Amino acid sequence: MEKFELHILGCGSALPTTRHFPTSQVLNVREKLFMIDCGEGAQLQFRKSRLKFSRLNHVFISHLHGDHCFGLPGLVSTLNLLGRTAELHVHAPRGVAEVFAPFLDFFGKQMSYRVLFHEFDTREAALIYEDRSLTVTTIPLCHRMPCCGFLFAEKPGANHIVRDMVDFYQVPVHELNRIKNGADYVTPEGLVVPNDRLTTPAAPPRKYAYCSDTLCQPGIVRQIEGVDLLFHEATFAEADAPRASETFHTTASQAAGIARAAGVKRLLIGHFSARYDDEVVLLQEAQAVFPATGLAGEMLCVEI
Amino acid sequence: MEKFELHILGCGSALPTTRHFPTSQVLNVREKLFMIDCGEGAQLQFRKSRLKFSRLNHVFISHLHGDHCFGLPGLVSTLNLLGRTAELHVHAPRGVAEVFAPFLDFFGKQMSYRVLFHEFDTREAALIYEDRSLTVTTIPLCHRMPCCGFLFAEKPGANHIVRDMVDFYQVPVHELNRIKNGADYVTPEGLVVPNDRLTTPAAPPRKYAYCSDTLCQPGIVRQIEGVDLLFHEATFAEADAPRASETFHTTASQAAGIARAAGVKRLLIGHFSARYDDEVVLLQEAQAVFPATGLAGEMLCVEI
Repeated sequence: MEKFELHILGCGSALPTTRHFPTSQVLNVREKLFMIDCGEGAQLQFRKSRLKFSRLNHVFISHLHGDHCFGLPGLVSTLNLLGRTAELHVHAPRGVAEVFAPFLDFFGKQMSYRVLFHEFDTREAALIYEDRSLTVTTIPLCHRMPCCGFLFAEKPGANHIVRDMVDFYQVPVHELNRIKNGADYVTPEGLVVPNDRLTTPAAPPRKYAYCSDTLCQPGIVRQIEGVDLLFHEATFAEADAPRASETFHTTASQAAGIARAAGVKRLLIGHFSARYDDEVVLLQEAQAVFPATGLAGEMLCVEI
Repeated sequence: MEKFELHILGCGSALPTTRHFPTSQVLNVREKLFMIDCGEGAQLQFRKSRLKFSRLNHVFISHLHGDHCFGLPGLVSTLNLLGRTAELHVHAPRGVAEVFAPFLDFFGKQMSYRVLFHEFDTREAALIYEDRSLTVTTIPLCHRMPCCGFLFAEKPGANHIVRDMVDFYQVPVHELNRIKNGADYVTPEGLVVPNDRLTTPAAPPRKYAYCSDTLCQPGIVRQIEGVDLLFHEATFAEADAPRASETFHTTASQAAGIARAAGVKRLLIGHFSARYDDEVVLLQEAQAVFPATGLAGEMLCVEI
């Protein structure tokens, strides 16, 4: 299987603790790296995870709170020191360029590469990235400021050729691409060989949804239905539910409710409030609603 | 003895490594905390060191390279989340307010306290902070941009009264302050009791000098003469001396030469280049010139 794995660089919330870095993750899709949020220290954790800076071309920022983007200047500077020449694309809500560009310009007077900001409107889902094998779509969330999650979806792959059958029917090489994409084969004698005799289906395309920060938002369920992995913020325990609504955050059991309603395969919770010395209480509350829940943790790597 | 101790929060240079945070230190002078440089992650390391945010009122920034100041936005935000009301004073070279103020304003729309920037000219030594027990003076350095080190000097303390002698001569209470400050006592009979019969000397005032980043600068020797502890950058080993001059940095043996010339009591080296997997080579080169040298390290705490 092609690589599709998630690295957690930080899963705390805004107040620093001795255990967590602020939010940042890296999704590795076939050795292309996509950073999701970039809290302070993201570049340090990136390095610690032994990920390759040269494989990183896109950073997705959910919203412009410091604990989700204060790592950007350090990351940008380091890539410059490493002599990067490829453009770095930063996808973020409207306003990111206005606040970051002058700051980055001051500290990067001799830049070896360009940082390009791509701003999106957080009010409706939009396709913001696409390549041969992946799409990234925003997931509108509800926070104290414009904020979106992100849905990373593999494109359906081509079917796999069954070599023996292709040899048996003496299928010419120039037909193979059509067959991989689902066509039947017609022999010179006019015999139709159905596609499913010549191929096995590709692995089903995988999906990863990232939802942070947000008030519990049942409206997102439709968009994240059946994803292989959902990361959802679970800043608070149920006892602090009033605080969660006041601050536009989600409790662990609310996050699990979203996962259950969307029928996701697995749920990972994070963005833990500094008030919990041990997040097991969050895990237990979530698992009571949705058993296939795990706790995020720095340096955790999850195969999707 | 009153507290005068140094906490190393980060001692790497600009490129992140798995072992070091970028530069930041905290000097604890009688439970007042003074931060020196504020690289990315400084607030996380501060928290990890179990230092108290409420005791921090002054941050001193040597120069405006990212690895010495990218931790400032995170620190400022966290103090705000903690509900701080006291002003935070940031002392830094000219230009700091222009680049940081708009950035901090954007991320701190509802600030509970004020950040005050105090800019200094890096071309000559100047007294930039003073309280009852401490002065801070800039140390002009030579780097690729305006840069200063800092000399933290305790003020001489009052002498200690020798209770038995004061009782013996029946010194009235209102004379005691004068005597603590060095005056002799004259009895009603006109007998002069010399101060050194009535007091023992205060502990000698302590000094800490911080010098980073800089080309090896013998010009600073006079200013840091005899300090109890010198932190000096030692970015490179002798084999990379050409690289050190090119980038306006110092080698370990050059740093030790400065320590020896200044007759300091102890030297601590840091700001290690990412190229050294093990800094023992730097330590050995420095100790060959100045034996009382130690390596800085994250979470190291040095009593001065």
